[in-house]
Amino acid sequence: MDLSALKKQLPTITSRNVFKVSKIFTVEQNHLVFSNGAERDYERIKSNNGAVMCVPFDGKHFILTVEYAGALERYELSLVKGKIDDNEEAIVAANRELQEEIGFRANHLTLLKDELCVAPGMLELRMYAYLCTDLQVNKLNGDEPEAIECVYLTPSEVKELIFNSKSCLTESRTIAALTLALHKLGFLS
Amino acid sequence: MDLSALKKQLPTITSRNVFKVSKIFTVEQNHLVFSNGAERDYERIKSNNGAVMCVPFDGKHFILTVEYAGALERYELSLVKGKIDDNEEAIVAANRELQEEIGFRANHLTLLKDELCVAPGMLELRMYAYLCTDLQVNKLNGDEPEAIECVYLTPSEVKELIFNSKSCLTESRTIAALTLALHKLGFLS
Repeated sequence: MDLSALKKQLPTITSRNVFKVSKIFTVEQNHLVFSNGAERDYERIKSNNGAVMCVPFDGKHFILTVEYAGALERYELSLVKGKIDDNEEAIVAANRELQEEIGFRANHLTLLKDELCVAPGMLELRMYAYLCTDLQVNKLNGDEPEAIECVYLTPSEVKELIFNSKSCLTESRTIAALTLALHKLGFLS
Repeated sequence: MDLSALKKQLPTITSRNVFKVSKIFTVEQNHLVFSNGAERDYERIKSNNGAVMCVPFDGKHFILTVEYAGALERYELSLVKGKIDDNEEAIVAANRELQEEIGFRANHLTLLKDELCVAPGMLELRMYAYLCTDLQVNKLNGDEPEAIECVYLTPSEVKELIFNSKSCLTESRTIAALTLALHKLGFLS
């Protein structure tokens, strides 16, 4: 397959302007000149260290979470996730979040994709998704406003939720990470 | 499967504060009281009408795009996508973006998921992903700074890119939409 278009000459960024716009968001405004001479202003939401997403599998079930999704004002079926702390390795953050959010430590973590991006047109955010296996009970305290509920689902139940167009599993990152995990474990081909 | 946790009592939003923070971003700051009494401030990036993502399939190949991803400062392998205009139906927006970005009109569009969300903790954005088939050449002018390059890939090439952990296909929404399309067309089970 020919993917040479990805090696196209990058636009030149002729000015950058970074400013904190609220308690949690920082915006960067850039002026770009494309290789054909076209000029545009681009804006992105800055991200410091990226984030992790965990796909825990206990040998029979995937453990999903139900957590309040502030931007959609509803409870959402998702996976353990969280920000990477300063000077923290992604794999360490994944195991920390797993223990804080659902009370398991994983003895084995496999990176599912070198990097998963979320909305590369406007979010600088990069995610690291791990398949987490060989689980043992170990609870750490987190900063969640309420306990996160766990939902145990078999591989076939997860597939049903992914492929049913009307199911409650709607989050792109969760669908992508579960798809990669199902394939890695031999449940999808 | 027991998904009753999704019906949990929603937090009460006791104050809302919306403000435009830059040329394209508007932030909403909310104060929430959870059903257990815990209080938190949440912030989200507002979205007006949502956006569409298109998975065009010409009978033999999926047509992916290579477009500059401003927030990651690189060219990214993705799919046709764009914002829904005011008073525009999602399916109409999908066919418009398809014609603007890659010069095809689809005579058949199938919604792959009632809604795909992107980062429900902070982005209000909802996407509508369509499988677009029965394609005919028809170019509309868009507002892109440069022509979008197309990459034609067979279903097996797309699967290779999805499941190879080191491939250049890294965008969660694109992986999710392609996964749903592959399954709908019978190439993934």
